[in-house]
Amino acid sequence: MDHSLGSFDCVVLNGTVVTAADIGQYDIGIRDGKIAMLAPRSSLANATADRVIDAQGAFVTPGGVDAHVHLAEPELFGKGRPADDYTSGTKSAVAGGTTTIVAFAPQEKKDASIIPAVEDAARKALNAAYCDYSFHVIVSNPTRQALDEFPLLRERGISSVKIYMTYEALQLRDNQILDVLLQARSTGVTTMIHAENGDMLNWMTEQLESKLLLAPKYHATSRPQLLESEATNRAITLGQLVGAPILIVHVSSPTAAETIRKAQTNGLPVYAETCPQYLFLTRKELEKPGFEGAKCLCAPPPRDGEEDLEGIWRGLQNGTFTILSSDHCPFIYDDAETGKKSAITAEAPLGRFRYVPNGCPGVETRLSLVMSANRLAPSRFVELTSTNPAKLYGLYPQKGALLPGVSDADLTIWYPSSGLAPFAITNDALHHNVDYTPFEGHRVNQWPRYTLVRGKVVWDRDNGGVVGEKGYGRFTRRDRSFFCQEELPPWDVEQW
Amino acid sequence: MDHSLGSFDCVVLNGTVVTAADIGQYDIGIRDGKIAMLAPRSSLANATADRVIDAQGAFVTPGGVDAHVHLAEPELFGKGRPADDYTSGTKSAVAGGTTTIVAFAPQEKKDASIIPAVEDAARKALNAAYCDYSFHVIVSNPTRQALDEFPLLRERGISSVKIYMTYEALQLRDNQILDVLLQARSTGVTTMIHAENGDMLNWMTEQLESKLLLAPKYHATSRPQLLESEATNRAITLGQLVGAPILIVHVSSPTAAETIRKAQTNGLPVYAETCPQYLFLTRKELEKPGFEGAKCLCAPPPRDGEEDLEGIWRGLQNGTFTILSSDHCPFIYDDAETGKKSAITAEAPLGRFRYVPNGCPGVETRLSLVMSANRLAPSRFVELTSTNPAKLYGLYPQKGALLPGVSDADLTIWYPSSGLAPFAITNDALHHNVDYTPFEGHRVNQWPRYTLVRGKVVWDRDNGGVVGEKGYGRFTRRDRSFFCQEELPPWDVEQW
Amino acid sequence: MDHSLGSFDCVVLNGTVVTAADIGQYDIGIRDGKIAMLAPRSSLANATADRVIDAQGAFVTPGGVDAHVHLAEPELFGKGRPADDYTSGTKSAVAGGTTTIVAFAPQEKKDASIIPAVEDAARKALNAAYCDYSFHVIVSNPTRQALDEFPLLRERGISSVKIYMTYEALQLRDNQILDVLLQARSTGVTTMIHAENGDMLNWMTEQLESKLLLAPKYHATSRPQLLESEATNRAITLGQLVGAPILIVHVSSPTAAETIRKAQTNGLPVYAETCPQYLFLTRKELEKPGFEGAKCLCAPPPRDGEEDLEGIWRGLQNGTFTILSSDHCPFIYDDAETGKKSAITAEAPLGRFRYVPNGCPGVETRLSLVMSANRLAPSRFVELTSTNPAKLYGLYPQKGALLPGVSDADLTIWYPSSGLAPFAITNDALHHNVDYTPFEGHRVNQWPRYTLVRGKVVWDRDNGGVVGEKGYGRFTRRDRSFFCQEELPPWDVEQW
Amino acid sequence: MDHSLGSFDCVVLNGTVVTAADIGQYDIGIRDGKIAMLAPRSSLANATADRVIDAQGAFVTPGGVDAHVHLAEPELFGKGRPADDYTSGTKSAVAGGTTTIVAFAPQEKKDASIIPAVEDAARKALNAAYCDYSFHVIVSNPTRQALDEFPLLRERGISSVKIYMTYEALQLRDNQILDVLLQARSTGVTTMIHAENGDMLNWMTEQLESKLLLAPKYHATSRPQLLESEATNRAITLGQLVGAPILIVHVSSPTAAETIRKAQTNGLPVYAETCPQYLFLTRKELEKPGFEGAKCLCAPPPRDGEEDLEGIWRGLQNGTFTILSSDHCPFIYDDAETGKKSAITAEAPLGRFRYVPNGCPGVETRLSLVMSANRLAPSRFVELTSTNPAKLYGLYPQKGALLPGVSDADLTIWYPSSGLAPFAITNDALHHNVDYTPFEGHRVNQWPRYTLVRGKVVWDRDNGGVVGEKGYGRFTRRDRSFFCQEELPPWDVEQW
Repeated sequence: MDHSLGSFDCVVLNGTVVTAADIGQYDIGIRDGKIAMLAPRSSLANATADRVIDAQGAFVTPGGVDAHVHLAEPELFGKGRPADDYTSGTKSAVAGGTTTIVAFAPQEKKDASIIPAVEDAARKALNAAYCDYSFHVIVSNPTRQALDEFPLLRERGISSVKIYMTYEALQLRDNQILDVLLQARSTGVTTMIHAENGDMLNWMTEQLESKLLLAPKYHATSRPQLLESEATNRAITLGQLVGAPILIVHVSSPTAAETIRKAQTNGLPVYAETCPQYLFLTRKELEKPGFEGAKCLCAPPPRDGEEDLEGIWRGLQNGTFTILSSDHCPFIYDDAETGKKSAITAEAPLGRFRYVPNGCPGVETRLSLVMSANRLAPSRFVELTSTNPAKLYGLYPQKGALLPGVSDADLTIWYPSSGLAPFAITNDALHHNVDYTPFEGHRVNQWPRYTLVRGKVVWDRDNGGVVGEKGYGRFTRRDRSFFCQEELPPWDVEQW
Repeated sequence: MDHSLGSFDCVVLNGTVVTAADIGQYDIGIRDGKIAMLAPRSSLANATADRVIDAQGAFVTPGGVDAHVHLAEPELFGKGRPADDYTSGTKSAVAGGTTTIVAFAPQEKKDASIIPAVEDAARKALNAAYCDYSFHVIVSNPTRQALDEFPLLRERGISSVKIYMTYEALQLRDNQILDVLLQARSTGVTTMIHAENGDMLNWMTEQLESKLLLAPKYHATSRPQLLESEATNRAITLGQLVGAPILIVHVSSPTAAETIRKAQTNGLPVYAETCPQYLFLTRKELEKPGFEGAKCLCAPPPRDGEEDLEGIWRGLQNGTFTILSSDHCPFIYDDAETGKKSAITAEAPLGRFRYVPNGCPGVETRLSLVMSANRLAPSRFVELTSTNPAKLYGLYPQKGALLPGVSDADLTIWYPSSGLAPFAITNDALHHNVDYTPFEGHRVNQWPRYTLVRGKVVWDRDNGGVVGEKGYGRFTRRDRSFFCQEELPPWDVEQW
Repeated sequence: MDHSLGSFDCVVLNGTVVTAADIGQYDIGIRDGKIAMLAPRSSLANATADRVIDAQGAFVTPGGVDAHVHLAEPELFGKGRPADDYTSGTKSAVAGGTTTIVAFAPQEKKDASIIPAVEDAARKALNAAYCDYSFHVIVSNPTRQALDEFPLLRERGISSVKIYMTYEALQLRDNQILDVLLQARSTGVTTMIHAENGDMLNWMTEQLESKLLLAPKYHATSRPQLLESEATNRAITLGQLVGAPILIVHVSSPTAAETIRKAQTNGLPVYAETCPQYLFLTRKELEKPGFEGAKCLCAPPPRDGEEDLEGIWRGLQNGTFTILSSDHCPFIYDDAETGKKSAITAEAPLGRFRYVPNGCPGVETRLSLVMSANRLAPSRFVELTSTNPAKLYGLYPQKGALLPGVSDADLTIWYPSSGLAPFAITNDALHHNVDYTPFEGHRVNQWPRYTLVRGKVVWDRDNGGVVGEKGYGRFTRRDRSFFCQEELPPWDVEQW
Repeated sequence: MDHSLGSFDCVVLNGTVVTAADIGQYDIGIRDGKIAMLAPRSSLANATADRVIDAQGAFVTPGGVDAHVHLAEPELFGKGRPADDYTSGTKSAVAGGTTTIVAFAPQEKKDASIIPAVEDAARKALNAAYCDYSFHVIVSNPTRQALDEFPLLRERGISSVKIYMTYEALQLRDNQILDVLLQARSTGVTTMIHAENGDMLNWMTEQLESKLLLAPKYHATSRPQLLESEATNRAITLGQLVGAPILIVHVSSPTAAETIRKAQTNGLPVYAETCPQYLFLTRKELEKPGFEGAKCLCAPPPRDGEEDLEGIWRGLQNGTFTILSSDHCPFIYDDAETGKKSAITAEAPLGRFRYVPNGCPGVETRLSLVMSANRLAPSRFVELTSTNPAKLYGLYPQKGALLPGVSDADLTIWYPSSGLAPFAITNDALHHNVDYTPFEGHRVNQWPRYTLVRGKVVWDRDNGGVVGEKGYGRFTRRDRSFFCQEELPPWDVEQW
């Protein structure tokens, strides 16, 4: 490398740079899409640079990594499919400060292999995205063949799978989960688990339906916290049996969080994710008049009250949660053709919660909501929303960090750290392909001013909005989890 | 009633009478099979009585109630069936101080109804037993019909069912368990649950078999404590969801006991049973040379070491455990015809743990072993082995108590409370129809001197041994649990 | 003994007899102040008896044992002294169904010996009491001499001492507590501990006074739950260090109860007491207009809200609490001479919480309040209010039980178990020497119909009220705790 | 600033740079004692620099911060005083990779002010140190004056105090602790607490002495874990009452660690420190022949066994511990004049544990021992030993980080990250002024190759050893804790 030190593609000056461990005032030089230099504040002011961004007073953070985004998936449950494709979804992402997303490649239950799922997702993403991306493979049919393909995933730069303890089309039995976990352990794959007890919630749903309790709020009734806590405890036990790292996705329940905390205290490799819907929404949202409540219907559901939200914030503060993702799962509420989330059919003219596709959009609002809440130390915010997802899923240090010569120059540059004038989130201002946001009207006082992906400004809020290009986003190969860097020894059944 | 106060069928004089709450020295008068009078020590010495028993220096307790005894069951698993019928089993019971047993009436998986199971058990027990008895119904196929029959069980004086979370022939899914629990709640039935995670242990078994790890000790490896703890937690959650009382049978794991304790602390109606095998046996027993270890193979298995035994004793002392039963499950070790527990087949000439029927005999040794250990206060001993089983399963106050005019005159009269000269248990001295006892060689210093069922001496250790008659034992009707005397309000799904 | 079986001083017929373990319908024959016979219902109907009590439909229980009653104590804190002496206090006791009280004999700080305290209390009680009584010795100055006198206490039939972790006049340092506990351990004495952190609450009081926050409600502010939890944890640690049984008196805090529960789970000999004020009163009582709140000022204070009351009820139900006492501590609110609880002085014309003597009367209302709440199983009610206090403090089986020939015929006979027409408690109806009751206006539907002490009716609510005689009550010798019957081995410092 | 970008005082090339969050391969440019630039690996190879360090294959970390070092203190207990002054102590520090130490300025009990303590320490440190330093003030007499001086401390750049719950000369009562904590809260001071129950351990010591159990191992007997757990729980309660951040120093007990973890889970600002002696030493060290055990006598003592060490490692891994310090407390074992740690006197010719000054040297071995154990992720190692101490005590980001233009160029450069050939620690190789190391013979495979303080190499293991100069080390002003950056609102007693 023989570049002169003084010439950059871009320099970011005068900002308060926040990483997972540090806050400091220094300048950043970018070259060839990488972080090229960190230098004392103002010292790059006179450097040669194609673009100079003055971040005076603002936080500069590694770009957001959203590790839980549903895009362009096939219709698995007969309830609809995500309304966002890789184009609209990643456009929404960069507008919200996210520079890398990890979406899902779902194996269809009828398939013995998982490779078609990967190829399908890759095809859909190719030349479509505004930001970088990767895939988690959803394993719904853990055949011998599927398990044997895990090393192929790794070869293709994919190092995580997701499994479900609920949903008829996806639910695995405990022995199947063990098959997945054992293979994941030996191939350096991280397993994400949706932990709700499917048998119990099916039973609850039957009870509710038999009493004609069909409104959206009964979705919450059908899956109380203790179903999530139970499944969480079981997932931890399954992981413990084979010594495999697991990530419990979208934890909504403070008691589930306590269960996780206990496992972590005991040294088990249990990681946890939560989402803004469990920090800002409660069951009240499901009780709105008409069928509007369906807009906030996701699984697990928003919980009962403020105390539950506090419990989840507590978990963010005390270290229980490893990452904070959006679980962006975009369904149109009022679709002429399908009536998606409104779930109104001839049979059920008032709607029926069972038929509502579970999930809410949120890839664009994730960072702003949490930053504006001002309840996390800035470094913890970065850790949860960028560095840890990158570490957990093997994107680090390319993503989630600002290491010279090592990290991609993915940056989110905020307004002055004291914030903007407070304003209300409205769906009009968002870039996803959904006709509502569950956070409509929520007031925030922060929003990304700039988003840079590999050194290029792709979002300039005050000057053009989304200024990146479709197709600029690349598939990013992932290695084994940074939290489990060394290959684990072969599992020994005789240890028990 | 116009009997003169001074005339009895039998009087027990000078004993130290121990009940679940009290210890005192007083005399007991018996008439018409009932406790007729409690009177100051020596005051019945001159009463007219057909039989006078001098219990000087001895503990006199309500007769033992063993609520977990397998007798004369059909072959459900293709591994054999209990070697004891109602005659040999109850003969063994009275010789060990037990005056009432509750055995099982297992529904066959193919049956939609549970009534045939009850009728089959009733037929087998009729005119066969030495002591009083009742049945728990094992529900392996909770059809609508089976559930609808719960009120019929209550009419027939049966107030408990048992379900399994393991064993292919018996395992229910969580939604089926909820069906049972909800119906049990509304019909005043207590549900017993075998809490081990069947899917997980099947998976473990496959792992072991695939490595040709087939010896009896691998039975313990196949079902480590965390499988029991997981299932226990799940069972508690299931019970909590519908607000139904549950009894976790044969708890072997200190961590499962902690889970139960936590639920009890929170006020949930969770009861727990343990057995002598979890107080006196460890995994070492399974590691004996040859296939001998199979003799102590039961499920859950004896646990790893002294620390585990201590944990279970602790649970008995601190109140976690409600009852202490034998889980008498008698299989012949070396049977010319079937090779039962030895499980030696042409295919597996050294045996194969998977084929060993799970369970050990113990109805006769239960009381002596625990009394001799001298680790429980005498009243706690009576509570665990007699009063609480009677209360839990609706036999109280007819059984498990000494209430004048109310309680049956079922008594166990011991040797002087300071004990006998220590001696070793040998199978030769026992009365069951099994060719071994897992407690062979265990030293004890107590054994019942007399056992009385409804006022009649049926066991006189120093003078004839079993002196009762086959067929004297009666079916005893049971009411709803004394721990849940009032009908619960209808379950309301909307509470969640 | 040559009485004919058919002649009694008194018989109680047709009642539902409730003991700590049992409920049954049988008759009770009384002779020479003792329980002489328990016989089938109606079978004593024709027995010769001086008095026949028909208890048809009513619960008959062992007489209440109130193990925490302050009577006729010297003025220790400069705030006043108990308004009740042994006559008014025990009159109030029997009118409320209590047949034995244990009062306090407080050592004065200046004394090196504890014997004067005992003799003073004995003198005051002699020929004064309506019911039986004993003393706990309050040790405020654990000199070598005082410790050496513990065996003398045992000789005099006293087997418990009480110590304080608060109150300047009484507070011991942790090393002094260890001195007491070690000596208590080796002499078979049970130690009661008032667990609030005195240093912390003094500091809080100073903070409040410095801000002129003087109203009664600030008494509660001065001693929040965490001070009680802290001291409880410390007391348990002190007991654990020397392996001595302890009883935490008047637990008010659910978190303290959890700390105790954990110790019990771990097998430590930790016992706990609570009182009606922590089941029925909250901080709201202290917030009444004027200085009236002082009437409910006790230590620990009534806690914040319903949730706290529920926490204490939960502890009664799940077994955390061993006994339920009144902590009867009678101070006159409005006393011309001293202005006792109103604490109005020239210096503080609106009163000052610091000067209010801590404590409320309650010996008469204890049983009725708790029985009427109908939240405890009848046997648990008896266990908590009679049998366990008798066992814990070495009065059992003379007290707290109904053992023929062994137990005193102390009985409380209630109205039909379905209760009376609900009525409000008023101070006018009570027999203590206090001008208020903290439970004024609380509605109850049960009250003792009869109270019998050693076979003699001393309270007949419908026919004369208190019909016993002053001086009938006797000092009752106490043995070591029934919960710790065997002498403990010498403590060995090298175990640590 | 007009330096050309290409000229540095020093560059560190090709290393694997580890910070609290990150690991990456990049070069570091140093100028004027500060980190001047972070640049891609090899890109500074040709930069102009006075000194070039090739760190190929090695970890490069921020210099160690040891926040618990006793140097040049006055004799407070009559047992001796630290043998190291600021010269020998900091020489030992840099030789072990530590670039900043925080030592103690102990108020003498007789002083009403704390200023003399600070001035005394400052005087001793001036022109004496090899590395940078600051002071914690030990408050042994929290007079009004002393408390009022806290703002003066802050003005002088001191933001922490330490208090003791044990040691006659230092022990504060709980109300005194509250005085300190409240003032600390309102002045932005962090309070360190030595949490052992002094009253209890004095009592234990008396018990042991009365039995002539005087050997060093009885020091451990005199202060079992539960004394530490108790005091830890109390300290947490005290902090909670006034909402003040606390740091529990030198936690040795896994149960104390659990207590801390619980408080952290609940969101309390409780921080914790442990030390190598609790990771590598057990009670066995105290049981060595003769009085040699005294060498490892510190308080709290090394705990019983491997399980305890594991518990502390667990706490390091799961996040319970915030910092890892040495508690370097250097006393000479065999001193002709005083006989310091050997504590052999005419009165006690075999020595007497009570007279042994508590504490062991360790400032030089801290980093090497822990790095060599290879049980912490490299970033966690840096966090615990450098970044977090800097953050907790207000040295960050000047210390503990590598922020360009912001952080001092304090670096520890290790040997290749795979380690050295294992060698045994010997006291001969160390630089402190003590005649032993408690880690004599412990094998390590890592040791700092270079230590840089503000850009200057002060330790070059392979070329001169300590090459820095006495007096180079500066007093470093400290701000309020980075963990509590915002001023807390005034404490409100009425919140309780």
